[in-house]
This record gives sequence, structure tokens and C-alpha cells, in this order.
Amino acid sequence: MTRPPTPLTDTSVELLDTTLRDGEQAPGVSLSPDEKVEIARALERAGVGVIEAGSACTGAGERKAISRVTDLGLEARVTSFCRGVRNDVDLALKCDVDGVHLVVPASDRHVEGKVGSTREDVLETTADLVGYAADHGLWVEVIGEDGSRADLGYLETLMETALEAGADRTCFADTVGHTGPERTAAAVSRLAELGPVSAHTHDDLGLGVTNALAAVSAGADLVHCTVNGLGERAGNVALEEVAIALEHVYGVETVELSELYDLAQRVARATGVELAPNKAVVGQNAFTHESGIHTDGTLKDDRMYEPYPPETVGRERRLALGKHTGRAGVRAALEEHGVDATDEQVGTIATRVTELGDRGRRVTDADLLTIAEDVTGADRDRTVELLDLNATSGGAVPTASVRLSVAGEERIASGTGSGPVDAAVSAVREAIGSAADADLEAYHVDAVTGGTDAVVTVEVMMARDDRSVTVARSEADITRASVEAMVDALDRLLEDEDERQVVASADD
Amino acid sequence: MTRPPTPLTDTSVELLDTTLRDGEQAPGVSLSPDEKVEIARALERAGVGVIEAGSACTGAGERKAISRVTDLGLEARVTSFCRGVRNDVDLALKCDVDGVHLVVPASDRHVEGKVGSTREDVLETTADLVGYAADHGLWVEVIGEDGSRADLGYLETLMETALEAGADRTCFADTVGHTGPERTAAAVSRLAELGPVSAHTHDDLGLGVTNALAAVSAGADLVHCTVNGLGERAGNVALEEVAIALEHVYGVETVELSELYDLAQRVARATGVELAPNKAVVGQNAFTHESGIHTDGTLKDDRMYEPYPPETVGRERRLALGKHTGRAGVRAALEEHGVDATDEQVGTIATRVTELGDRGRRVTDADLLTIAEDVTGADRDRTVELLDLNATSGGAVPTASVRLSVAGEERIASGTGSGPVDAAVSAVREAIGSAADADLEAYHVDAVTGGTDAVVTVEVMMARDDRSVTVARSEADITRASVEAMVDALDRLLEDEDERQVVASADD
Repeated sequence: MTRPPTPLTDTSVELLDTTLRDGEQAPGVSLSPDEKVEIARALERAGVGVIEAGSACTGAGERKAISRVTDLGLEARVTSFCRGVRNDVDLALKCDVDGVHLVVPASDRHVEGKVGSTREDVLETTADLVGYAADHGLWVEVIGEDGSRADLGYLETLMETALEAGADRTCFADTVGHTGPERTAAAVSRLAELGPVSAHTHDDLGLGVTNALAAVSAGADLVHCTVNGLGERAGNVALEEVAIALEHVYGVETVELSELYDLAQRVARATGVELAPNKAVVGQNAFTHESGIHTDGTLKDDRMYEPYPPETVGRERRLALGKHTGRAGVRAALEEHGVDATDEQVGTIATRVTELGDRGRRVTDADLLTIAEDVTGADRDRTVELLDLNATSGGAVPTASVRLSVAGEERIASGTGSGPVDAAVSAVREAIGSAADADLEAYHVDAVTGGTDAVVTVEVMMARDDRSVTVARSEADITRASVEAMVDALDRLLEDEDERQVVASADD
Repeated sequence: MTRPPTPLTDTSVELLDTTLRDGEQAPGVSLSPDEKVEIARALERAGVGVIEAGSACTGAGERKAISRVTDLGLEARVTSFCRGVRNDVDLALKCDVDGVHLVVPASDRHVEGKVGSTREDVLETTADLVGYAADHGLWVEVIGEDGSRADLGYLETLMETALEAGADRTCFADTVGHTGPERTAAAVSRLAELGPVSAHTHDDLGLGVTNALAAVSAGADLVHCTVNGLGERAGNVALEEVAIALEHVYGVETVELSELYDLAQRVARATGVELAPNKAVVGQNAFTHESGIHTDGTLKDDRMYEPYPPETVGRERRLALGKHTGRAGVRAALEEHGVDATDEQVGTIATRVTELGDRGRRVTDADLLTIAEDVTGADRDRTVELLDLNATSGGAVPTASVRLSVAGEERIASGTGSGPVDAAVSAVREAIGSAADADLEAYHVDAVTGGTDAVVTVEVMMARDDRSVTVARSEADITRASVEAMVDALDRLLEDEDERQVVASADD
């Protein structure tokens, strides 16, 4: 018996976040108890209904982390993953979780090949374990591992057995990311006839979201997902994608969308897995416009090239300069920096920005301002200039010295730091003095892959009062690239007369 | 009139790659003519049917690049993007393209707000332009910009006009990544009644693949996509995901799957946009297994935790060590390094690998071997050890010196390079001599974000004959981290007696 599909607009669905379990199973990812607590709190703020805090059987450290999460007394149901053995349930109970996800093999490949068991034995063990967990007051979800490659008839019998033994819900799992929406819908609609059913999808074929939506339409009312789509292999379906798709397209509310960006950043930081710039919803470029027609359109009407305002997911819009930048984008950027230019000059500047983008990768604020000075004929006196730089590293105390020209006066200073760049930055600060200092708001070095002689791209953002400037430098010497970018940014920030006064009189 | 949906298994579909146009419109991305040629060749090897080489109106550099691609004489149809103005078509003709994608506004927001026109005017211009392009022998596809937010009746009229004027096909474009599969299917099925129709989907809601499949099922026979899902904002739908989903789930062949990984790597390198490790099909971890049960299962049966073999898309399987590693994974890794251990020792090693993973991020070969030596009691003499390191950078000639202990003998050497790390590496090579040298197969520094005092993670892979070793070091001083990792890797490679002989006798 199967359940006919429901239009998604008429569904009601909750999200189960499994970042702290599936997400952590991603190669190279490990979360400390503090990090798990921080992420669990952020999930609670976002209103996530169920938080799988980990897998109690993994070890003592993991159990400590799970206990820290259950101790928080969250509104969300906090659960542990358990393999189909009684000891795992006992370990989960020790962590005081609200519920467990019992994983039992569903496909013959897993029943026979992995566990070395038979279909009948699995039914018996499942009934026994579910009864045991339910008797101990646990909320129980039974996941049929590799369900998408299972015989549907057996999967149905298995889940019927689980529900009869006292399970609260079953879960259709596309464990290896193998299937498509048709099979997902067929399986879920049959399980939905038996009782509440969840969906667990993976993105190996890029079908994580497709299958999650197919499952919901077929009757699933709980979707397993991870923040940023972390997880084994290509990862689980991304929480932020399921949430925005359901709400934007179908009007189905699941979590607090405005918390999604904060959540994504916390998880990226804690796991060390950086987001691709083109990651949906939370990637760096998701609300960035560079192309001429897109920027032009967006300046006329925010929604021209956006499906929804960035504020919806806790973000801001950004215009970038590059090869495809048009006049409108250049004019907006110049205005931001208080630069006046005629229409003709803006046209010339736009052409040169395009040419620069044609050759390189990024066009920064400093590049734009240099071109603008040249085109508008505004002479620029450099306030701060780097004359010499020397940094020693490798030993116990990285040390650097700089010779700067500051408002026409030569200054020499030295500094130490945790590495060559850090030492050089401290020498620069010493030389210019605190009255003229600015905050280093962001320091970013692109990942280096290849040889030790590869060109390194350093980007700094420095801010003073309410102005900020971004400068990038690409060189093989990371020390030189970093200091040149920083000095140039400082110079840009100090370029009006008053500021120069500040620098000249600063003698500390 | 709408066309009933077709089961995807009964469809036939071709892919249009727009990496060189949409992909390049991603903020900060710019491809040189050489890079465009390299990518176009790789697309041809993969059997992609249509290659959009760029947008001829962007500038002279872009036209040169497009001409370089048309000059290749590829089997694929090579096209240019054109805005709805005659000059763009003329510029495309100068590049000798086979066809053009004419973009005309379809939604009222774009018709009125962006172009300041009326629906009627757009119909007239479209007919005129299509006729002009077709008269010049071009294959013409008309894209209704922002089609997903357009009035369906008007979209139908617009496309009917285009086809009557001589267009070869129309395209339903979800330009801003705003819509879901239901609306996509509704629109495409109506357009498919008029003539051949393409689908152009974006991933802002994570629905890029979902909508592409819905479009194909509704009658689209050409899907626009980009390698790695590059593009404006969250990007276009990823070519590799559409290709694998169609072939694996529905048996619909589009391109040569075994070329997908090579293609992804070339594009990542040329654009400088790194792939997320959990990117479907082509991400670093898509075929990596770390978790205990997954590794165990995979060692028993490759397909236990994989939807399809990695070789399908031109890749290899990888087992990683970490917090979730079990005995089976540890045993496999030890065997790879030729280390003997009893069952009990393997258990102890696995526990310590888990503990290490619990604290850190990665467990490298060197970590595993250090633990194994300790557990098996195998005493290890260090062949090469770093005693002192000093590097100077920032100036004109980065210079470094090292003091090494090599097979018990102290050696001092110096070197220069393009930066502090490169200079230090050259000093190390000088000290150990060429007879004992090994290839630095990979050098990777994680992106640094935060302050100049951030801890930097360096990973090196060194190879000698047929053995390779990976070592990672995290320190605030990039020079020290790089050299320590390299020296440790060298030491691992040289640890048997014969090799030590090689080192001791090398005096050059």
C-alpha cells in the first residue's frame, strides 16, 4: 500500500540536525566538547527540533561531549546514534539523551555482507533492542541502513516490526547516496502508511535536496540534515538548503532562517572545513554581484538578481569588482570611497577595471583607487611607504625590522612575533606609532598548493574609524606580500591632510 | 497546452557547458585565453555537446579568447552569449562562433525595471534579432531572462515569436535561482510544445539539480551547466552532478563520466576556486572513508558504502585515519607502510589513533607510524633530524641556513629561494645531498584567515622510488612548520639501513 504524494505546500516538517554525528564523521573533522556545545546552542537558537549530539559508542571523549549537550537542557530533543547492539543503548543512556537512532541493516548487502546475519535474525534483534530502548524511556527512531538498496518488502516488514516493538518512528536512509527521487518517494510512501517516517539523504549524486523533498512529499515529516552539508564522502543534505527551499518555494517553515549564516560560520570554524564560495545560502559569493548587467540591475532593484533578500538568512549584499564590472558598479564603488568622477571618467575607469580583471583574479579597493587617481588626475602623495623589510624566522624568536617613509620622515623599527609576518606587522606598527594605527580587520592567505615557490596571495582589510580598505598582493615571498599589502592599506586610510598630521606628530 | 511528464529513464538529453561564460562571471574569476582553450579541450574530451565560450561583448580580450576556442575546430558546437542588441550578435560573428544565446527579458521586473521596455517591444526586438542572427547562419537559442518569475502566458508568446522568427530552440531560465521543480516543469512542458527547449538552473536554493531533472522530465533536451557548479552567486547547476545523476539513477548517458574528475581539477586550478571537500562527485572526500563502520564495510566490499566505484568518474578510493577509525582501517594503513603488528597491537594503535583524532583534525601517515613504533616497541633511529633553522625574508634575496643531523653526522648548509620556505627547502636539500633526495610531490598550506599570528597548517607529501609519506605540521611560523614537516617526511623515507648508507656516503 502506498500513500499518494502530497503537494509540498500542504506538508508540515521538522528538521533533525546531525552535524554533531554525521558531520563529524567527515574525514579529518573532530569536534571538541566545547565546540559541540557551541554548535548545539546555535542549533537551538535556530529552532532545530532534534539534535543528534554524537555516537555514544565512539569513546569516552565522545560521551563526555554528548553529556555536555544533554546538560544544557535544550528545548530540542537531544539524541545519540546507536549501532544495533545493546551496549550502545546502555552507553547512550549514560549520557542522559532523550532518544536514540538505532541503526539496523536493511539491504541484503549489509545484512549478509557486513553483519553476517540473516533477514530473520535482524528482525528479531531489532524488536528486542527497540523494546529495550523504549522500556528505558527513550524516544526511538529506527534507521534501516542502506534502505535505498534494500528489498522494499523486507524494509516494510523490518519497520513494521520496529514500530510494533515500540519505536516512535522509522527512517528511510539513502546511506550511500545511491538513489533518486522516484525510489525515495516509493519507499517513504509505503513506510508512511505504517507510522511516522524520517528521511536521511546523502549528496553523492547531487540529489540530497531532491530526495529530501521527494521524501517529504511522500509523507516524511522529519528530515535529517547537517549544517553546510558536512558528512561522509559528499556529505549529508545541507540543513540550510532544505530550510530555504521549503520556506521560499513552498511556504513551509522549519527553522529560524535568519540564524542560518551564523550557524554555517560557526560550524565552518569549528570543523575547519571551509565553505566553497558558491555554496548555496551560506557561501561567500551567494549574495555577491560582479557581472555588469547583474550589478547594474541590482543597483536599480535589489531583487532583480536575487531570489530573496540576503537579510533573510542573516547576511548582507556585496558588490564585487572584476572583469565583468560595468559603469554602475564602478560608480557605486567610487561613491563608497568618496571619490568624485565625471561620467566620462567613470567609463574610462570601468574599462581599466575590466582590463585588470581580464588579467588577474580580483580587483580590490586599492586597485580601483589607483586607477581612479590616474584617470581623474588627482595626484596622490604617499603618506606611508615601505622602504626596506627584513624578517628572520625558523628560530625561537621570529624577528623583523622595517624602514618606512612616514609623512616624508624616515623611520626604522623592529618587532617580534609568532612568525615572520607577525613580527614584520609588529615592526610596522612600532614605526608608525599608535596615533595613526588602524585595525587589521581581516588577514587572509589563499591556500597554497603546488611547490614551495608558488605565488602566495595575501589580502588584508584594514579599518580606521568608519572607513575600511582592502588590498591584495601576490608574491612568492609571503612576508613581503603581507607587509606591502598592509602598508598600502594604511597609506590609503591616512591619505587626507589631517591624518598625515596625526602621523607626523606621533612619536611613540 | 502542457506536455505530460516523461519518466527520466525514457529521455534523451545533451549537456551545454557554460563554465567559460557563467562560470567566469563568478566574482573574482577570470580565465585567460590559454585557460579557456585548455578547458574547452577537456570539455571536448568529455563529449560535451555545446560549449558556450564566453560573451563577445565583454571586451577585446574576451573576443580573442572566444576566437581561440572556435579556432580549435571542435566537434562541439561553440557559442557566445549575446544581450538582446544587434551589436552583440555582430561581435559574436567576428569570433566565428557556431551559435549564440540571445538573452531577452521575460519577467516584467526585467522587461520594465531593467530594460525600461514593454512586453510588446521585447517581442518585436526579439523577432528582429533572431531573424538577423539566423540570416547570418547562426544556431540560435533564445533565453528568456528571469523566466521563472515571468508570466507564463507571456513567456509562451515570447518563445513562440522567437521560434517563428527562426530560433532553433528556446530556454527556460531560472536566472536568480528562485523557483522549484513544479513551476519549472509547468513552464518547460508548455515551451516543449512549441519546439526544442533547454533548461538553465541556478543553485541559490540548493535546487539546481532538482530543477534540471524536473525540466528534462517535462521535455527539455539540453541542460545548461558549469563544471564545479561555478557561476554568479551560488552558481549554476554542476555539470558533474547532472551527468552522474542522469546516468547512475536513470541510465541516461550524457558525457564521458571518466573525464569528470580531470575536468573538475583543471577548472579549479584555472579559476582559483577550490572545491569543497564534500563537493559531490569531485570533492576531495567524495570517495574517502574514515568512520570505523564505513571503513570496515568498505574493506569487506567496495560497494558497501559507495553508490558507484570511484573509477567511474576517473578517481580512486581513499581510506583516511581519524577519530572514527576502527581496527580494520588501521590494519590496512599499517600494511600499506609494511608495518607488522599483532591483533592486540592493532587494537592499541587504533585506540591511540582515535584519541589523537579526538583532539586534532587530521591523523597523517607520520602520526600513525610514530604510534605504531611506540606500541610495537620497534626502536626508531632518526636518520635525518633538524637541529637549527634560520630564514631571512622580505628583502631582495630570501636566504636560509639549516643545521641537520644526517646519519649521526652534523651538516650545515644554506640556500636561497623565492621566499623563506623555498630558501629553507633548498638549504635542506643541499645538506642531505642529491643521492638521498626525494621528490616533494605535494606542498599544501591551508588558507589562513584571522590574524597574522594564526596557526598555519602545512602538509607535505614526499616520494622516493615507489613509497610516499604525508606529514602535517601546525605552527604559527610558516617557515618552521614547512621545514619540520619536510625533514620528518624525508626521515621516514630514508629509515631503512640501505638508505642510511646512501645518506652517509652522499657528499655532494
